[in-house]
Amino acid sequence: MKALYFDGKKLTLHTDYPKPKPGEVLVKVTMSGICGTDLEILKGYMSYCGVLGHEFVGIVEDSHKKELVGKRIVGEINAGCKKCQSCLSGLGRHCQNRTVLGIYKRDGAFAEYVSLPEGNIHVMPDSVSDKQAVFVEPLAAAFEITEQLHIEPNWKIAILGDGRLAQLVARVLRLSCHDVTCFGHHERKTGLLQKIGIKTKIAIENSDEHSFDVVVEATGRESGFLDTIRLVKPRGTVVLKSTIASQNKIDLSPAVVNEITLVGSRCGPFRPAINALATGLVSVDELIDAVYPLDSYAQAFEHAGKPGALKILLQS
Amino acid sequence: MKALYFDGKKLTLHTDYPKPKPGEVLVKVTMSGICGTDLEILKGYMSYCGVLGHEFVGIVEDSHKKELVGKRIVGEINAGCKKCQSCLSGLGRHCQNRTVLGIYKRDGAFAEYVSLPEGNIHVMPDSVSDKQAVFVEPLAAAFEITEQLHIEPNWKIAILGDGRLAQLVARVLRLSCHDVTCFGHHERKTGLLQKIGIKTKIAIENSDEHSFDVVVEATGRESGFLDTIRLVKPRGTVVLKSTIASQNKIDLSPAVVNEITLVGSRCGPFRPAINALATGLVSVDELIDAVYPLDSYAQAFEHAGKPGALKILLQS
Repeated sequence: MKALYFDGKKLTLHTDYPKPKPGEVLVKVTMSGICGTDLEILKGYMSYCGVLGHEFVGIVEDSHKKELVGKRIVGEINAGCKKCQSCLSGLGRHCQNRTVLGIYKRDGAFAEYVSLPEGNIHVMPDSVSDKQAVFVEPLAAAFEITEQLHIEPNWKIAILGDGRLAQLVARVLRLSCHDVTCFGHHERKTGLLQKIGIKTKIAIENSDEHSFDVVVEATGRESGFLDTIRLVKPRGTVVLKSTIASQNKIDLSPAVVNEITLVGSRCGPFRPAINALATGLVSVDELIDAVYPLDSYAQAFEHAGKPGALKILLQS
Repeated sequence: MKALYFDGKKLTLHTDYPKPKPGEVLVKVTMSGICGTDLEILKGYMSYCGVLGHEFVGIVEDSHKKELVGKRIVGEINAGCKKCQSCLSGLGRHCQNRTVLGIYKRDGAFAEYVSLPEGNIHVMPDSVSDKQAVFVEPLAAAFEITEQLHIEPNWKIAILGDGRLAQLVARVLRLSCHDVTCFGHHERKTGLLQKIGIKTKIAIENSDEHSFDVVVEATGRESGFLDTIRLVKPRGTVVLKSTIASQNKIDLSPAVVNEITLVGSRCGPFRPAINALATGLVSVDELIDAVYPLDSYAQAFEHAGKPGALKILLQS
């Protein structure tokens, strides 16, 4: 089968890559999405070698659970051991022995076929298009914030960034809180946010300092962390959505003095993400910049890497 | 009056330092305690110049509130503006315009007299000795953890450190949770912890990794942060009690991947600390290493700075 393989140095489209072995749910991939994490992996993140891709929608071709066959599905990306304390307590996505689709020890979805354990599969309602369904995984990561924090409706929330992740986080948090401000530079992206009632600002002003109850770091840049500490109120909460491997020194003492709570936040629950797309509470169509066939992966990745780009999809 | 003044370079005992001006509660200091923060200030922390000392007990000599005169009291160290949002919401200790006793823009208690606003004063019950009363302020900082976190009784808690702060944190957390382990090197200090039912370990073993629900950093060393991330469970909580100004790079990405919550924690509520001393729930007598007269400040500070030292008191 066709599969987009990363050998640690180079991304190549294999045409005779082995189809996933039986034992899990076998899915014929319809469409997949390029995520910031994919671009990071190409730079060395996670030292991953294998087929890339973890945002996808497809049709089940084979499964022990026969009622799944033929169904249009999306899949959670963490596959736990099902034996450890984390798995037994329902937190399989934190299993120390997990594999992660297209990220860690498990071939991903930029391919004709992909496989996942039965427990990872979610059937998609008809009201969600294929293009929208690709957003379930990153949208679930945005909903993770609301699973971790009790967001009070009268809070003032800041989001640092206006890119793919920030756009989804803003769409989710505006459901719980009306006062959401995004700090971003790109006119087109901030324009999309303004259309759905999000305030946007290019730079932090003095009056913004220490004025937000919650600040979400979604820039992926190191400077983002310093800005969160500048914006958040004493006793407030900073949500770290991007994995910042800092090369500079990070001084945590302001976080201690101001008693800030820093919350690391990663993958999230699929169910609320699927519901939000199915009911139209969250719109994502305007975030799609282009759809490329898998064969044109080189152009697709180039497009996804451009500063102004939002979501780039691949058709398998 | 006598006062121990730090000019940014040197600590000197002034004998003719001006007595605090009227307008606040005037307190004749009986006894005070040397804290790790005092030692940090001597190294440049907070760029503070003034009279040092923020842990004290004394007798009220003058006050607008006449019923306070003659009373034995302790005092909260943060003095807010009483006008800003933080002050009005009862969080005066986070007022951006606050002064802090012996730490920031307010002369401290290593002196014959000290003054504080009326709202900062707490009358001590007779059952608490002067020596014990000096511990109210640092013990309140330990109780701050229980104000910030809901500690579940069946949790497994680790404390990094066995020094002054770690000793008090351990004494407080064992009231909510029976499974508390301190990681520390000093035999005498870990011995004190064992006597009150705290488990102690010298080094982190493989089986300790990612096994604690809560990890409290109370070493004041930079390496402490890395150890917290090693010990805490996925989705667990790290409490940062010491202000770590890191010179090394801190990589926060493991905190994101494991969805750790980091909670900065500083000064705390005096009332539970006073109650715990008055009822004997927390014992501190064994933590006192020596009492020096204020005149012998040089020896006292030298003693407090020794690796094995616990609490050193000053008699005014």
